[in-house]
Amino acid sequence: MEQPRDPWDRLQELLDRPDAAALAAWLEALPPGEAPHLLARLREDDRERLLVQLDPQVAAGLVDRIPDAQAAGLIEQLEPQAAAAILQELQSHEQADLLGRLERPEAEAILSRMGEDEARLARRLSRYDNDVAGGLMVREFLAYPEHYTVAQVNQDLRANAARYRDYQVQYTFVTGKRGRLSGVLRMRDLVMAPPERSIRDLMIPDPLTVRDTATLDELRAVFEAHGFFGVPVVDDRGRLVGLVQRADVAQASAGRSEREYLKTQGIVGGEELRTMPLLRRSRRRLSWLSINIVLNIIAASVIAAYQETLAAVIALAVFLPIISDMSGCSGNQAVAVSLRELTLGVVRPTEALRVLASEVAVGLINGVVLGGLIAVAAWVWQGNAALGLVAGAAMAINTVVAVSIGGTVPLVLRRFGMDPALASGPILTTITDMCGFFLVLQMAAMLMSRLVVA
Amino acid sequence: MEQPRDPWDRLQELLDRPDAAALAAWLEALPPGEAPHLLARLREDDRERLLVQLDPQVAAGLVDRIPDAQAAGLIEQLEPQAAAAILQELQSHEQADLLGRLERPEAEAILSRMGEDEARLARRLSRYDNDVAGGLMVREFLAYPEHYTVAQVNQDLRANAARYRDYQVQYTFVTGKRGRLSGVLRMRDLVMAPPERSIRDLMIPDPLTVRDTATLDELRAVFEAHGFFGVPVVDDRGRLVGLVQRADVAQASAGRSEREYLKTQGIVGGEELRTMPLLRRSRRRLSWLSINIVLNIIAASVIAAYQETLAAVIALAVFLPIISDMSGCSGNQAVAVSLRELTLGVVRPTEALRVLASEVAVGLINGVVLGGLIAVAAWVWQGNAALGLVAGAAMAINTVVAVSIGGTVPLVLRRFGMDPALASGPILTTITDMCGFFLVLQMAAMLMSRLVVA
Repeated sequence: MEQPRDPWDRLQELLDRPDAAALAAWLEALPPGEAPHLLARLREDDRERLLVQLDPQVAAGLVDRIPDAQAAGLIEQLEPQAAAAILQELQSHEQADLLGRLERPEAEAILSRMGEDEARLARRLSRYDNDVAGGLMVREFLAYPEHYTVAQVNQDLRANAARYRDYQVQYTFVTGKRGRLSGVLRMRDLVMAPPERSIRDLMIPDPLTVRDTATLDELRAVFEAHGFFGVPVVDDRGRLVGLVQRADVAQASAGRSEREYLKTQGIVGGEELRTMPLLRRSRRRLSWLSINIVLNIIAASVIAAYQETLAAVIALAVFLPIISDMSGCSGNQAVAVSLRELTLGVVRPTEALRVLASEVAVGLINGVVLGGLIAVAAWVWQGNAALGLVAGAAMAINTVVAVSIGGTVPLVLRRFGMDPALASGPILTTITDMCGFFLVLQMAAMLMSRLVVA
Repeated sequence: MEQPRDPWDRLQELLDRPDAAALAAWLEALPPGEAPHLLARLREDDRERLLVQLDPQVAAGLVDRIPDAQAAGLIEQLEPQAAAAILQELQSHEQADLLGRLERPEAEAILSRMGEDEARLARRLSRYDNDVAGGLMVREFLAYPEHYTVAQVNQDLRANAARYRDYQVQYTFVTGKRGRLSGVLRMRDLVMAPPERSIRDLMIPDPLTVRDTATLDELRAVFEAHGFFGVPVVDDRGRLVGLVQRADVAQASAGRSEREYLKTQGIVGGEELRTMPLLRRSRRRLSWLSINIVLNIIAASVIAAYQETLAAVIALAVFLPIISDMSGCSGNQAVAVSLRELTLGVVRPTEALRVLASEVAVGLINGVVLGGLIAVAAWVWQGNAALGLVAGAAMAINTVVAVSIGGTVPLVLRRFGMDPALASGPILTTITDMCGFFLVLQMAAMLMSRLVVA
């Protein structure tokens, strides 16, 4: 009996002994989840070697099985000619999605090497944002004119069975004049109907539709409110242009919340894999860090203004980073809840006051607890009640400030059309740092006589 | 012509003038996305008043249209009898999901008021984790014994059309002895087959299945690798127990990444809506903050050990929070990328060394840039090159430390079965704070003569 081989060793072997057929068969048989990991482990030139060896159709199958960000990285690496050959084998919305992730000139180089019709369609689709109905919809759906009979539909289904293999056929669309959507036909109704019946009589007329410009949030709400597997997409003239599926909307939501998380942590653009070029990764991270360091220096200038106070009671220096850090933590909790509530649609950007009231309540409780803890720690450590009072009061007040800002800033940013994921954190920590440093040092200056006596 | 009313005012009106039918009709006609928002704005007692007024079926429709976390909050508020009546109207996996979100005694109180069969099924389903196939699968699917003919299937479809309305019928399952799954029948094949044909001859035998214990990551990989809309779920004896759908897996992934983000920001359990009880919100946030404050005090004790150095060069106190903050930022970027790569399956928990090498490279570049910036700022501010050297070198070295720890800690935690989302941040900042404070203050102590000369 043959021993199961480590897939990594086997891949190395297959790369060294170019045999496209064996490689394709082996890739096809890989357990689910293995491909993304193996590709990430490969050196850049080996990845290219792998793809170039494969038949475009097999390569497209591989591209389909890995996360989009990784797939875009692979496509980017290839010659435009090879990339175009692979893209042509993908579904239209996958094409558009990958092209949308490339730099403009690279995408154009690939498009110019694709078939004319396909390039035109891909260009049109890639004009849509990835997160609107036009960018999420598939073009692989069935539509028949109103005057067709059940028999005519069945005949077409049978004649084109191979072509329709990857189509979503739970629903079939019925179109009227100028391609306008007039109804939806359920496959199950087709099953039971007599062959001579016109599909106009079977269809559900005036079905629910979405515009091609509908946003991801709107689509989520539509699928939350209705149980459908897919909803037809129409353009500004009511013409049927695609089908947006529940699974694709759910997947786009997952992708968006992953990108949003990455952005809150300072990954600009919400996309980084370690297979990306080093300089690009470093540059993107730096673009956010360098704004942050300037904000940090501004915040720390508050400390600089109180050097005398600090020199007189050097123990205060211990509490400055603690208050800065803890306020950041408390505030970021509130930021996270606000971002989530915005995503779920349970709060609107105009409702900052409602959020503020709710956060102040949490802030008061948590501020008292955290302030109490730090006050006791300071008092015990230096045997000075005044130091405990200063550190504790500053912590308590600043906790309320932090949750208030953390809760409301994402709503305000969203309201003014800015990206709350990327900007909330830096704004929050700059304000809470300044405020926290000021509170500690100003209170210390006021209680100086009690602080230095001890 | 009637003016369109503000939904909020209309809701208030409907609550004051109890008219269950009018309320139900109005709820049904609400635009998608409106319901979650209106419910979140209502006072707690008004929410209860609303639900109690509604027919259980209408209330279930409403529960179905709002996010699960919000729905669980609503159910929790109701008397067990009323809650049971609503739950009975939901699909089995929705029931199990909501029950799984409640406290054990509350869930039991509701289950004991449900129908016997339904309660038994709900108990069995709620024993599965939410994020495994058994917890995600629907029970509403069609299955027929092998010996059925096409005509028999069609007859059953017609006879039970109303009951099957919400069923997923793209695939029909075929079962053999003892309920074991033997094949899958495509609706489209059924359409075209002669009525006397046995379904055994039409079915695709030995279909792809997943075990009821398959994890979300495994399911994601299966759907990434195959284009199916749904995959049958079997138990340990190969018996068909449910159907897991692509859309539900994608939605569970979205939910998981949202929870994961909340956890990285210190929302324990990954769930908080501002409609939850104040004390529960505050307690959950505090449980994480209070661990953090202890870690912060430990880290700051490094500063306490260098009070003399600090007293001699008070300007250093300005740089301590900057280095602490910036190292946190750099490290959290690396944490975010690692969590994402783990989710996508492009990195395995055992590959910390590969991640380390990749992060050190980024850290060296970013460390030099950020260190350079802070060195110049310090030099210009105090006119002291040595201060610039100390602050800059500490920042540069600590950036490398931060990205190294940030990149690898999530993998190590995952490898030892801990939750990297919740624990990575606190571990990261504690180590980088200690290391950063030590670097600044120890280097300052060594260069003291140069620092105080200026």
